[in-house]
Formats: sequence, C-alpha cells, structure tokens
Amino acid sequence: MPSVIVVGASGYAGALAARLLWRHPQFDLAAITAREDSGRSLTDLYPQHRVPLVLEALDLDRAAGSDAAIVAYPHGTAAPVVAALLDRGLRVVDLSADFRLRDVAAYERWYVSHPHPELIELAVYGLTELYRDEIAAARLVACPGCFPTAAILALAPLAGAGLIDDAVIDAKTGVSGMGKTPRDANHFVSVTENVRPYGIGSHRHMPEIDQELGALGAPVPIAFTPHLVPIDQGELLSCYITPTRPFGQDELDALYAARYAAEPFVELVAAAPGVRDVRETNVCAINVHADERTGKLFVFAAIDNLWKGTASQAVANLNLMFGFDEGLGLA
Amino acid sequence: MPSVIVVGASGYAGALAARLLWRHPQFDLAAITAREDSGRSLTDLYPQHRVPLVLEALDLDRAAGSDAAIVAYPHGTAAPVVAALLDRGLRVVDLSADFRLRDVAAYERWYVSHPHPELIELAVYGLTELYRDEIAAARLVACPGCFPTAAILALAPLAGAGLIDDAVIDAKTGVSGMGKTPRDANHFVSVTENVRPYGIGSHRHMPEIDQELGALGAPVPIAFTPHLVPIDQGELLSCYITPTRPFGQDELDALYAARYAAEPFVELVAAAPGVRDVRETNVCAINVHADERTGKLFVFAAIDNLWKGTASQAVANLNLMFGFDEGLGLA
Amino acid sequence: MPSVIVVGASGYAGALAARLLWRHPQFDLAAITAREDSGRSLTDLYPQHRVPLVLEALDLDRAAGSDAAIVAYPHGTAAPVVAALLDRGLRVVDLSADFRLRDVAAYERWYVSHPHPELIELAVYGLTELYRDEIAAARLVACPGCFPTAAILALAPLAGAGLIDDAVIDAKTGVSGMGKTPRDANHFVSVTENVRPYGIGSHRHMPEIDQELGALGAPVPIAFTPHLVPIDQGELLSCYITPTRPFGQDELDALYAARYAAEPFVELVAAAPGVRDVRETNVCAINVHADERTGKLFVFAAIDNLWKGTASQAVANLNLMFGFDEGLGLA
Amino acid sequence: MPSVIVVGASGYAGALAARLLWRHPQFDLAAITAREDSGRSLTDLYPQHRVPLVLEALDLDRAAGSDAAIVAYPHGTAAPVVAALLDRGLRVVDLSADFRLRDVAAYERWYVSHPHPELIELAVYGLTELYRDEIAAARLVACPGCFPTAAILALAPLAGAGLIDDAVIDAKTGVSGMGKTPRDANHFVSVTENVRPYGIGSHRHMPEIDQELGALGAPVPIAFTPHLVPIDQGELLSCYITPTRPFGQDELDALYAARYAAEPFVELVAAAPGVRDVRETNVCAINVHADERTGKLFVFAAIDNLWKGTASQAVANLNLMFGFDEGLGLA
Repeated sequence: MPSVIVVGASGYAGALAARLLWRHPQFDLAAITAREDSGRSLTDLYPQHRVPLVLEALDLDRAAGSDAAIVAYPHGTAAPVVAALLDRGLRVVDLSADFRLRDVAAYERWYVSHPHPELIELAVYGLTELYRDEIAAARLVACPGCFPTAAILALAPLAGAGLIDDAVIDAKTGVSGMGKTPRDANHFVSVTENVRPYGIGSHRHMPEIDQELGALGAPVPIAFTPHLVPIDQGELLSCYITPTRPFGQDELDALYAARYAAEPFVELVAAAPGVRDVRETNVCAINVHADERTGKLFVFAAIDNLWKGTASQAVANLNLMFGFDEGLGLA
Repeated sequence: MPSVIVVGASGYAGALAARLLWRHPQFDLAAITAREDSGRSLTDLYPQHRVPLVLEALDLDRAAGSDAAIVAYPHGTAAPVVAALLDRGLRVVDLSADFRLRDVAAYERWYVSHPHPELIELAVYGLTELYRDEIAAARLVACPGCFPTAAILALAPLAGAGLIDDAVIDAKTGVSGMGKTPRDANHFVSVTENVRPYGIGSHRHMPEIDQELGALGAPVPIAFTPHLVPIDQGELLSCYITPTRPFGQDELDALYAARYAAEPFVELVAAAPGVRDVRETNVCAINVHADERTGKLFVFAAIDNLWKGTASQAVANLNLMFGFDEGLGLA
Repeated sequence: MPSVIVVGASGYAGALAARLLWRHPQFDLAAITAREDSGRSLTDLYPQHRVPLVLEALDLDRAAGSDAAIVAYPHGTAAPVVAALLDRGLRVVDLSADFRLRDVAAYERWYVSHPHPELIELAVYGLTELYRDEIAAARLVACPGCFPTAAILALAPLAGAGLIDDAVIDAKTGVSGMGKTPRDANHFVSVTENVRPYGIGSHRHMPEIDQELGALGAPVPIAFTPHLVPIDQGELLSCYITPTRPFGQDELDALYAARYAAEPFVELVAAAPGVRDVRETNVCAINVHADERTGKLFVFAAIDNLWKGTASQAVANLNLMFGFDEGLGLA
Repeated sequence: MPSVIVVGASGYAGALAARLLWRHPQFDLAAITAREDSGRSLTDLYPQHRVPLVLEALDLDRAAGSDAAIVAYPHGTAAPVVAALLDRGLRVVDLSADFRLRDVAAYERWYVSHPHPELIELAVYGLTELYRDEIAAARLVACPGCFPTAAILALAPLAGAGLIDDAVIDAKTGVSGMGKTPRDANHFVSVTENVRPYGIGSHRHMPEIDQELGALGAPVPIAFTPHLVPIDQGELLSCYITPTRPFGQDELDALYAARYAAEPFVELVAAAPGVRDVRETNVCAINVHADERTGKLFVFAAIDNLWKGTASQAVANLNLMFGFDEGLGLA
C-alpha cells in the first residue's frame, strides 16, 4: 500500500486531505505535519474529522520513506518543500499556486519571486478532467485554485469550440476559501447578513483562469470578480458569455453532454444548481442556459471549494498517479 | 397633518411602510389594512416594529377620509384597489408592478391581463432620483421593483452618457425579497449554507430595467440574473459593462460624482460595498471600477431591498408628494 | 442480502435513511415510497443525496417481498402502516412517536387516539445504547425522538446510579427538526439572527424523556425546554443537575467512562462540544462538569438530530436486527 | 447642550455609543477616541453607523472641556482612564467591569489587581431599572455586563419577593458579545451551523449576577452557562427557578406586572420572545411561565447585547444623569 504524507495539515485544505487519506482503502497515511501546531492532535483542531494523529514537524529524512506527499503550504513557502520532497523521490501533489502558472514572469507579477522556477516544466496542472493522462504520469501535480477549477470546467467546452467572443465570471464563495487565520474579513460579525465583492480587478486566480481558457481558445483576459457570502463551504460561478455566433439551447446542451457525459465528477443538471447540492463531494455541477432574450449563454457551476476545489481533487489526482480508480475514497 | 393609510400591511413591505409612517413626524397613519389577517395586531405579526395598531379590512368609504395611501398588494390585485382609492380622491403610492411598465403589452406578456390599463399614463415611475419633480406632482406613483431600483441607479450615469455597449447584471439578494408566504424555496434548510441562481432568463424585473435604462440610452435587453443568498435583507448588484470607448478610473469617478454628488441617498464609496453597510437605510451605495486588465467597467450597487428597494423609497416619494423633505422620517 | 424499503422517504428523515441504505454494503434498498410525491425522483427533491430512485406509492403486496421497513410517517398515521407491514412479515423500524410510549393513556394525552394499542407491547424502544439486545431480537423498534436520544444518553449514568435529585434540560436545535413542510416558523426570515424558545411546558418529547429516565431511577417529571437556533442540523442539550450528594469531577468522569467507554457511538469529550463536531455522524458527544461553585453537575450532549437523532440510529438498529455490525454503512 | 466624549470608540460598544450620541438631540458629541485606530474615520471602520468623525488619541486636557464621558475600554485598562476623567471633573459612564463589583477581593479573584479600588464606593451599578435615582445623581456609573443586565431583570421580581429556592440560567448569545478582535472562536467557519457552550463554570459575569440578585434576596451562587449561537447581536436567557412555594401563572404574571408595568424599556410578552424582537432597541422582553407539570417557574429574557446590554443602556443612564428623558435618542 503506497505511503503518503500530508505536509501542512493544520489548515482547512490539508486537514481535509488528511481525513480523506486516513479513511482511504489504498493509501497509508504515514504522517501529518504542520509548521506551527506540531504536537497537537488533529482531533483537537478538527474534531469533526476524527483523525487520531498528532501533527509533527516535517522531517525530510523520515519523509523519504514515503511514496508521495500532498503539500498544503502558502504560495512561496511551498516550492522549497516541494523541491526537497521531489529530491527524496516522492511524487508530490501541491495545493499552492507555486507551480500552476507556466510563465514564471506571470507568477512573479501576481505572487512573489519564484524560489524554484526550474521545476515549473515538471509540473502538470492538476485539473483532473483536462489533464488526466499527464497527471497519471506526473512526478509533480499543481492542483488548481478553487475558482479556476470551477471556471475552467464551466467554460472549457465553449472555449475549446472557439465559441466565446466575450465572457464575464461572477463568483460567490464561502468563507473557508479565505483560510483559517482569523481576520477582520472572516469575523462572524463581518460576514453574517452580508454580501461583498472583493479582490476587484486584482484576484490572483485570474491569470490561472486566463492561462487555461486561453490555451483552449478563449479570448483573454476574462473578467472575474469573487464575492464573499455567509456560508462556510461552497462556490457558485455564474458565467455570462457572448458567443461568436447564435446558439440555441439544444446545441448548447449537446456540446456539454459530448464533453462531460463520461466524466464521473461533472454533473450536468437541468435546474439551477445550489452549492449545497455538491457539499462535501468531488462533484462539479453545471447548468447551461442559452438566453433567447439577449442571445447570451449563461453557465452556472457549483463546487465545494474545499473538496473539488482543493483537497478531494488532490486525492483524485493521487489516485490516478498510483493507478487507482479516480474516485477511490471520495464517496 | 396629512392622513395616510397602508393597504396590505401584513406583508414585509407594507408592515415596514406602516412602521415608518407610525413614527413619521408629519403624516398621520390613519389605518392599516390586510386581506387575510384583519383583526390581528401588527405587533403580533411583527413584534420588532412596535406599531400598536390592529389590521382592518379595507373600508373604501372610511379610506375616503384620508389624503393618501401606500398600497402593498400583489400584482394584478393592486390595480383595482388603486383605481378605487384614486376615485375617492386619495393620492396613491403603489408598491406592486401594476403601473411600472408603460407598455400594456409588455405588462401582459410578463404578468397578467391588466385590470386598469387606462390608469397607466397617470402613473409616475417612482425612482426618486430619476423622477423627483414628476413624483412631487403625481396622483399615482408606481414604486420600482427592488432590483430595478439598484440596477437603474447603478447604470443611469453610463446609460445617460451613451457609454454602454453591453451590460451584464448579476444580483445577490436576501430572502425577504421573496415575500412572507412560506415556501420550499424560503425554508431555512433550503437557504442556509446555500447560494443558488433563480429566475434564469425569466425574472419579471427585466422588462422594468430595460424600460428605464433603454429610455436613458442603454442598448437593451440587458442580461440580468438574481441569486438567492442566506441573508434576510439586502441586495448587491454587480454590473459588468463593455463601454463604447476606452474609459479610465478618473473619468468614471467624475461621471458618477457629477450625477450623484447632490443626491442625499446615493453614496459613492471607495471600497467594495457590502449590503450590511446600507441595512435599514434608504441609501444606495455605489462603487465604480474601471478595469484596466479587461477594459470593462464594473459597478457595484448595494441597497436594502425592503427599505430603498420598497418601503422607504415609497415614504420618500410620499414626502415629496406632500412637500416635505425627501428624507423625513427615514433616519 | 436482506431487502429493505423506506416508507415515507420524501421527508428529511426518510430521505436520509434511504441515502444510508442506498450505499449500505449489506442491505438491498428495494423501494422508497411517499404519500404525496410518488412519481418524483428522490434526486429531484434531495440532489445532495444522489439516490437515483423514484418515489412510489406504497404497495403492501410488493412490500411483502421485503424483509424489513423503515417507516417515516407522522404520528397517528404511522401505526396503521406499521401494523400492515408487520402483518406481512416484515420487521419494522418506526421513526414516529406511535410506539415509543409504553403507556397508552400517556400517548393519547400527548398525541391522538392510538390506532393500534395492541402492538405497543411488541415494540422495543430503539435507543441503541440502552436496549441493544432487545433491539436485535425485535420485530418492531420504536426509534426515539431526537431530544430524548440526547437527553437519555446525557443523563442515563446519573439516573442509573440514583444520583439525580433535580434536573433541568435546556435544548438548542436546528430547523430540520421541525420538518420539511414550509411554515412561518421555519421561514428563513423568521429564523436567521434569531433564537427563540418553543413548546414551553408542552413539548411532546417530555413524556418520552420521563419514561426512560424515570425507569432508570431519576425523579420525574423533568423540566425540558427546546430553543430554535439558526442552524439546519444539530442539537445541543445542556443539562443542569442537582445531585443527591456532593460529587467531584473525578468521580463524575469515572461514572461516565464506566458506562460509555465501550460504546462505539458515544464520545466523552474534554472540551465543550459543538454540534458541528458531530454533524453527519451517528455520534453523541458528551461533556461533563462538576461545578464546584454551585455544587451542581452540568452535562452537555451534542448530536445530529437527523442522524443519531433519527435516521442513522434507525439504520444502526436495523444492522443489529440483521446481525451486522452496528456501525455498518454509517461511516 | 452638554458635551460628551466617547473614549474607546473603535470597539463595537464604543462605536455604537458614538452613533447614538451623534444623533442625540441633547448631547454634543465632542470627540471620539481610540488607543490604536486614531486617525481613522469611524465611517471607515463602521460604514453602517454613518458617524463622520475621526478617531483621536485621548487628550485629557481637551477632555477636561467636556461634561461627561462614556468609557469603553477593556477591564483593567478602564479604571486609570476613568480616574483621570473624574479628576478633570467629567461624569463618567464606564462600560468595563472595573467598577461593577463592590467587593475588591471578588474583582481581583475574577479579573486582575484593581488599579483604583478607592473609586469603587463612588460607583453606582448602572442597571437603570434598579438604580434610577442613584444613577441620576452619580459621578461614576458602572454599566452592567450584558448577561447580568438580562439575568437581573429576569429574576429581580422573584428574588425581591424571596421566592427563589434554586435557579439555573442558560444563556444564548450572538458573536458580537465576544468583541471585535478576530479569533478562532469568532471566525465565521467556527460559528456558522454550530452551537457551543463556553466559559463553563468560569464566566466572569457570574459574580456580578450573584452580587445583585443576592442583594435582592436570591440564594447565591446561581448556576450560569452561556452558549455561542450563530447570530451577530442578541441574547436570550432561559431561567429555570424552583420557587420556595407553589406558584401559579396568575400570581406570577401579577408579580411581574406590578414590578415592570411602569418601566418604559421592559416589555412583558405573552409569547416566547425571540432576540429579533428586540434587535437594535433598549428593550428587555420578558416572558414568564409557571410550569404546572414540574412546579418550576421559567423566565425568558431577550435583549440586544450591544444596545440594552451595553451602549444604549449607557446612553439611557447618561440621559438620567443630565435630567433628560431616559429614552431620549434611543428610538
């Protein structure tokens, strides 16, 4: 049974990855580590996960005994750890932004100076539905951001067919996406009974969306604005597309069915999806609407930002990397 | 002191209008009526409003003794009551959709057969900032829907200057906008920890938005999609505009400042507005962003759907109709 | 593989039971029925459950081919169906109140005239931890109400030791406990940002709590008051006990450890439990505190009202009835 | 017009006091100060308050020109500032715990070493309904904690009549009561869909409740346990009393009516009160129930913790101190 470690298991994403691996029938969760909370039990931090392991400081020598790692560190701090783990022969699924952008200059414009640009070409972008084969063979998988996961799945069929003339993406996200560190912006009193846009014109997931949808054939840059809503988990993306030519509901349905009918974790739904429908699942639910009145196309995509948007997609990728069924341990 | 009645005071909007008029320094709230809850105290239904009046069945003869009425009935049922009240000499502020659309055919396409089309030309569209003088002189004011209130205020400066080439409006609204009748869709369990689009391509506020923004010069129809979020009161509209020519932040700020600097209830805000910032106020908070990256313009507008979106705008209009300061009784 | 049906699968509890049985490794979910929604897919009503079955009208002849049924009907309407199913040889786990009270007179005082009093003696009270052996052998199991489940588990060790002189139970519950039918009381706007007691001195779970705790040795009746809080699932019971003699923390801890150490679904926790800690689990988390200042004992118990409080406890009981591990299919 | 300053206006309570005084018809809000946010506009921190003043560092010499101050500092840090302001001739309403307990030893057991014990005898406990005359004449008013405000109002009639044999108080509170500093415990994700007791057996409001109810005649110490619920503002206290003799509903109603009929801000309500009923008011809503089944008395009291529980009660007291109507500026 392959041995896996979770590096950075005290945050929301790493802790959930640990929970999924702890109950996984084919992986052995060998260790969970944290930079600041080492010595604490994960149950103490996340009683609901019921993972009776203690967070340790990362020991690279011991890590060398494992086959793979999920790394859940902030951008900039992830790359050096990823490099060290690759060096010791582990295959790595990285949840940070450090290896998502293929263009170093773009990374450095949106984030920080890149600690290991030489590893970028090694990385496969971990959107399972787009890069399944490459992921299976990869030594390093860069898991997508939560918004890009939903945005790219929502628009890939249209982008790939060259049908997008213009696109606007309006996202609504729960508070867990902002991370675990207490801040004014995630104080309960700031969030409850409130809705607020943030990162207007400046959100770091934009270059990632542009990279992938541009590669598929969409005109970029694409307008993207997230909004914070008073829920803990879940993301809804509402995409408004001006198509390059008139387009009816039947043709739109057919396009999406052709692309996604065989995908185990994309659900094409007839009614408007709510984020509760996909809570605690690896599913992306997509609804498409050809709007007769305006001639625009509307695509709505719902995911759980901590699951499909982060941790369960990471485990799905790990499954592929070790030859298991993509959905093993995710039901 | 002018005598006012609220017809249909058992719903959210009518009850709030009653609360505002009960404490108003210059209006005498003579009666509150309801079709189904007559005999019940308003305090029983809405303890938080502290209006110690009993709901009565509407008595048109007694109503004739009053000077004005706010009518808060559903569309289709409002028009006959409005007609009867006008007949008895009252000036009427109607909260329903019955007199908002100037085109009978449009009304009948989106709603029902119109009971009193002959009164439409009498009605003034009650968006205070656009029709202040006409409202002051009107016998019948048709208060705007909550979404049109925010949408038109958000885009009027751009529409009026002929600067809109294309617009998309994405709205997030609290549950009170759906009314008081219990339904699956407003059950707490359906709403909490959820976000969901609704009325996709079919919401009845669309023709109203098109009528007003079209009249100002915007190309219509405009794409509009509302989403239900787990809050009780409040609405945020995110508008994404492709301008007819390149446009910078300074010019955008200047355009909005020129239009709204003197408006007492429009606040131009520098930071992204949240709906809590305007809760229980007659204020529409607007933030504008010229997006360098995409060349688009983003306009965010927040209102309280029950206040500026309905009841407080009605009272502001009533103030104007009787020569009082627009904001009297709304602080 | 035993064949099971869920009768009344359109409500929250029945639908969740169907979800658990649909994925259960040892039961075959043969049919799901509903009185009003037959013909609709369960996925239509509960997308999150992902049970691709269609609700049928109950057909007793076809039901006769199954081995067991979970019945999720309202009180008074459950008993006749339970009788008919028993008649056809099925073993039944009933979620209603119809067979919980051993005293017909008590049942009829709190509920309605009992349709099948002759079956009461057949029924085993389905609190797994108290009646495990009787449940395993039972033809009819009457699953406890959600509040009694938590209340009895919270106080059984003290009651059984004759240590309760006086007890007060204050409960906080989510809205799902009130059922799926839309009402004023579960309208989102009534619930959000609110906390309110209900059923003051009149809640129907009181006789059930008294029956079981009285049988164990507690003085009854016990004061019990539930409060509605703005959450969907989950219940916290705060119990304040005046003991019959002074009692320290160590002795209290020892008493509960002795009673519950071997129980797979009772967790004794050192910190104050939150209902999120047990969400979507069959677990009852209990924290005990001997209050030096007042000499009282405080016991806090948290469950998920739809899981341990209803559907997962039903499936646990069904597991026992067919010789499976109690927790099969509940992880 | 008396000149007032708010010292410590950047927290929830101080900011609300500033808002109430800014719109008060008879006080001149001369300055608002803060220890850390000086230089920032209050509108920046609390857009919803619409107070266009800038927070300053406290300048005692300028403060000397004012007539009174509301001090909203944490315990321990408030006393020195209060002393300095009294020294300069201001009358002070202190929101901290520093002058609430008459017994220095008790204060030092529950809080810290007292910086100014010599001022304790000067302080009047600021529960308006109990100490109206003393407050009117006071130089220093120590406003009660939010829980004691509701607890003492709930039980004063019974305590004063010697009718309490035993009492248990179970409180449910919104998150604003925990203050503005971001912490794990007030992170949205920790609070939403959760209910959790805290401060079990150790909450600092207990000695204050005991001091006042004991003085009125109740046996103390009284069991008190607060619970955090996912709301921002509001507190509900559920009090369970074993009376010294049998007691019926009529007698209980009469007792409370006699005590509170003339009180402008205590509402005796027939139905179970919800905290929304008193949101953003100075009202304490009380419901009493003589429980025939158990012989116990239940008293439910709801307040807004930031209003009656803190800031509006402070302004009501200030009104009394300057000879104004108690409710001036609070409607």
